[in-house]
Amino acid sequence: MSETQKPAVAFLGPETSYTHQAALSVFPNDEYDLQWQHSIKEVFDLVQNEKVRYGVVPFENSTNGSVVWTLDLFVNAQNLHPDILVEGEVYLPVHHCLLDQVVLSPDSGSITPTQDTPNPQKPRSKPLQSLAHIKKVYSHPQAWGQCKLFLNTYLKGIEQQDCGSTSRGAELVAADETGTSAAIGSRFTGEVNGLDFLAENIQDAEGNTTRFLIIRNTKDVPLYSSPSSSSSNHFTDNSSQQKFKTLITLTVSHGSPGALADCLAVFKKFGLNLTSINSRPSTESAWHYVFFVECVGRKFPDGAGGEVNHALEELELVAKGWRWLGSWENRLVGGGVEE
Amino acid sequence: MSETQKPAVAFLGPETSYTHQAALSVFPNDEYDLQWQHSIKEVFDLVQNEKVRYGVVPFENSTNGSVVWTLDLFVNAQNLHPDILVEGEVYLPVHHCLLDQVVLSPDSGSITPTQDTPNPQKPRSKPLQSLAHIKKVYSHPQAWGQCKLFLNTYLKGIEQQDCGSTSRGAELVAADETGTSAAIGSRFTGEVNGLDFLAENIQDAEGNTTRFLIIRNTKDVPLYSSPSSSSSNHFTDNSSQQKFKTLITLTVSHGSPGALADCLAVFKKFGLNLTSINSRPSTESAWHYVFFVECVGRKFPDGAGGEVNHALEELELVAKGWRWLGSWENRLVGGGVEE
Repeated sequence: MSETQKPAVAFLGPETSYTHQAALSVFPNDEYDLQWQHSIKEVFDLVQNEKVRYGVVPFENSTNGSVVWTLDLFVNAQNLHPDILVEGEVYLPVHHCLLDQVVLSPDSGSITPTQDTPNPQKPRSKPLQSLAHIKKVYSHPQAWGQCKLFLNTYLKGIEQQDCGSTSRGAELVAADETGTSAAIGSRFTGEVNGLDFLAENIQDAEGNTTRFLIIRNTKDVPLYSSPSSSSSNHFTDNSSQQKFKTLITLTVSHGSPGALADCLAVFKKFGLNLTSINSRPSTESAWHYVFFVECVGRKFPDGAGGEVNHALEELELVAKGWRWLGSWENRLVGGGVEE
Repeated sequence: MSETQKPAVAFLGPETSYTHQAALSVFPNDEYDLQWQHSIKEVFDLVQNEKVRYGVVPFENSTNGSVVWTLDLFVNAQNLHPDILVEGEVYLPVHHCLLDQVVLSPDSGSITPTQDTPNPQKPRSKPLQSLAHIKKVYSHPQAWGQCKLFLNTYLKGIEQQDCGSTSRGAELVAADETGTSAAIGSRFTGEVNGLDFLAENIQDAEGNTTRFLIIRNTKDVPLYSSPSSSSSNHFTDNSSQQKFKTLITLTVSHGSPGALADCLAVFKKFGLNLTSINSRPSTESAWHYVFFVECVGRKFPDGAGGEVNHALEELELVAKGWRWLGSWENRLVGGGVEE
């Protein structure tokens, strides 16, 4: 890869995807060459093979939980992606819109929602226009789970067609000659595809946010430093530990009572607060798991021992195996989303 | 509900679904009235409202991990399903087949797979017939993840269409007038829909197995007792603890280092081996989690104190909140699947 050109960044596409927005917030077009990929695995492959400098992939949504495809690539990393390191994170507030084709001669515009909600919970927003002409809605399966109240109230019984991405749904609506379909997607994807906004902010949860990870190859020297830290490189003092997060996978002896409790006790011993824990099937045998543990703090380069370094040394004694996936600057400040 | 008729059992459908097979293995048609539902939530609703005696829902697959829709119904149980109790489990080995329409005048039958695998891993089985006529494959998204090697080897580049269930995919293939589509689904669904078998056992992992939960209402007296225990009701001695599993959800104080470690240490203290742990977003605020902890052992009725009872008493002191979701007989024997 020639560094005389703009450094390449691969992200889960297609263009105008939420991952694209997350990538743009850190890697602007004028400084980086953003390249969209069909799958999270392709992003991992390109970073592993040093075809790109960075990769951006979805990791977790505050409403829907983990993106298991990303977790599973880390579970299998030993074989396929041994040199992938997490370098940073991006939190993106996710505001879904209901999009359809622009109609040049608009109908009466009367709002005729079907208000038969057996449930006291109400959607956060109302349609801006009539939805009576909509026969089918396209979106990514994640979006159905994030917009349940709006769909149950205003589009009850309307066919829902799964797409590989919300952006793909918007493309299908733009191409639909009947004009009777709508897509759930971002403002960005609506604008790029020249669609009309039937409703905005239709997601159930106010703070609906997706977290993305920035990955790079361990063999590459980092180019990117996260925005708020660009003025300082003094990360080796323990006082700044709270500013960082570390992700580790670990396996424990199956059938040994308390094996996982022993591992987590190590984090407690060194005062490392856990920020998330997940388990995924180990690919080696059924009903064995790989645990993902994320904690506050940072692993220092070999030799410089912070709390995370000490914890990893002790983990060696109680875990069957572990792998450090990276340490990076925490972008979630004060429990809220940094805007 | 009249008990003079056969007790009703709701399961995630449609008919011939894997959940249907799991339900039939415990609730045979001659003794129970099996009723299929469109969603896991409908199964929970019917059990909560005592419209049926039992519900059967998917919980976890050995390759693909947790069924998050089921976990999320337990996360929200406080509001919508306060009386749901887990009463048992069923492990069902999942063998996927590639199904298409029966062709009365078969073609030459020559096998022309596209063998361009960049990856040394090989699929477990080969097509029984030519796949050259297949232009589209229907299945549930879970099945794509379970049959990656076969699809990448023999059906590379062929359009994959998501369906709500593998059985729905089989129905679409049966109705396809062009005869150029195939479905991935069970032998059962293939036979019921009158389809031909293009390949069998196409799942990547040998032990691919799904675990289902049997749920009932706490207000109902149990009718069903699990097959191997029907001859004995002496479950109140501690020596039989290993035969049972218990599922608990718990929440911890956010931001307190070691809060989860403290909770898991309680299970260790009482020698209760953890069989699985999961986390899902709490629906109350972003980046707060509900943890699912499953352990060996059984909660005895109030007053009779086994290890699980003692652990729950101590959990009261360290967890922010917890909920016992049920105890039932362990059907996974010796780490393998009980056939």
